[in-house]
Amino acid sequence: MSGAVARTHSWRLELCWDGRAFVGWQRQPEGRTVQAEVEDALARVLGGERVVARASGRTDAGVHALQQVVAFECATARDATALERGLNHHLPVDVACLVARPAPPGFEPRRCTVGKTYRYRVFQRRARCPFRRGLVWHRHGPLDVAAMRTAAQALVGRHDFSSFQAQGCAAAHPVRRIAAVRIRDEADPDELWLEFDGHGFLRHQVRIMVGTLVEVGRGRQAPEWVAEVRDARDRDRAGPTVPAEGLWLVSVDCPDHPRAPTAEE
Amino acid sequence: MSGAVARTHSWRLELCWDGRAFVGWQRQPEGRTVQAEVEDALARVLGGERVVARASGRTDAGVHALQQVVAFECATARDATALERGLNHHLPVDVACLVARPAPPGFEPRRCTVGKTYRYRVFQRRARCPFRRGLVWHRHGPLDVAAMRTAAQALVGRHDFSSFQAQGCAAAHPVRRIAAVRIRDEADPDELWLEFDGHGFLRHQVRIMVGTLVEVGRGRQAPEWVAEVRDARDRDRAGPTVPAEGLWLVSVDCPDHPRAPTAEE
Repeated sequence: MSGAVARTHSWRLELCWDGRAFVGWQRQPEGRTVQAEVEDALARVLGGERVVARASGRTDAGVHALQQVVAFECATARDATALERGLNHHLPVDVACLVARPAPPGFEPRRCTVGKTYRYRVFQRRARCPFRRGLVWHRHGPLDVAAMRTAAQALVGRHDFSSFQAQGCAAAHPVRRIAAVRIRDEADPDELWLEFDGHGFLRHQVRIMVGTLVEVGRGRQAPEWVAEVRDARDRDRAGPTVPAEGLWLVSVDCPDHPRAPTAEE
Repeated sequence: MSGAVARTHSWRLELCWDGRAFVGWQRQPEGRTVQAEVEDALARVLGGERVVARASGRTDAGVHALQQVVAFECATARDATALERGLNHHLPVDVACLVARPAPPGFEPRRCTVGKTYRYRVFQRRARCPFRRGLVWHRHGPLDVAAMRTAAQALVGRHDFSSFQAQGCAAAHPVRRIAAVRIRDEADPDELWLEFDGHGFLRHQVRIMVGTLVEVGRGRQAPEWVAEVRDARDRDRAGPTVPAEGLWLVSVDCPDHPRAPTAEE
């Protein structure tokens, strides 16, 4: 589209996708992205109109999403049912639209998001599983769940997470607040789930926190070590970054209107 | 292999596979089969020795298996850990060996099997799910679970299941015994599971029973209709055959030694 177009219709989408064949959410010069697929499908639904889709945040290559909130504005009028059906018709099989509904003018998921939950799935069975390839981290060997739960408490609260931040992270500062960590062994008989609730996360933060907790789980470090790692503010002190394939964005808590900003943002 | 080879080692495998890219278990002139993949992987593990792998029964194209019991005999000596690891190394990603262990001479899964459980997964969410494509039957619209449970009782017990048998079924007779039917809405918030325990099933029997129960669930037939269909012994009276993609062989109860035969076999 060239020239100024009145984007009178503001929309909110909730999407889920299988991250196995994507280099991530954000459109890039090379590689298949969820954003590009969504924008291409929207153009088909909107009779050729090109829009920009904005998510509540980025996700990395190979990361899966059960619910991501996305906004866009368009000039073309559509009703919600037609938009949702049309999107699911035109999207590739590894992306789906769960909900499409009108949003208030200026709806901006990144600003409105008050919480996100990530889940990391560790698949612990000896034999691999044909149905879970690329969806879990396959790690065989015992993990001390009680020790991991104790250690995880050091990650809860408002902290400088420099030790758990990938090199090259573009965040303005490394302080984040984690509202809760849950280490769940009851959800699947062959999996351990590590769930993190927070407002926002640094680049690779969840995967480095998981890699650090696994060091405790396998007995290479005591639970108290995680607080030492945190306080060191040094990426080299933490555990390894576990593979992206086990990481799932489970849900985004994103009301239609922004909240008042708080200190840690 | 040509000539007589002493097949001194008898083995039992428990396999699982994703049925999406298979035309079924049994080796065929055309199409990719689980049996051929398993036999090819075994040849690699056994230093080139070709064997025949025999399952507890056939499964159709697109049907998934969480646990199938398979037997073979070989001349080459291997220990169980090496065999299991080697198999998982050489099998394609959509088949896995859960267990490999020595079996008594003459172990024959088809004869030893005393029960099987099949699950049919009906995915009921409006929007499709990227993670479940080809693994569930996506059917949107309400189902009356209580009516389906009442109707399912007509399928429990020893009956002539001619009404629930595909044309061209090679079974010697249409009498089977179903030990239990469970209609489960608690396992997944977006799915209804129809589970059937039985000794053996006719061709497409589970899929026709599900298609028949769904006619009741959607209110097109009363629960009593299923007993009428059963007693008619006429395939044309039953509901449609639902798609193979929702069907899962969940488990096979197969001791290492055959039981005494019973009347209905």
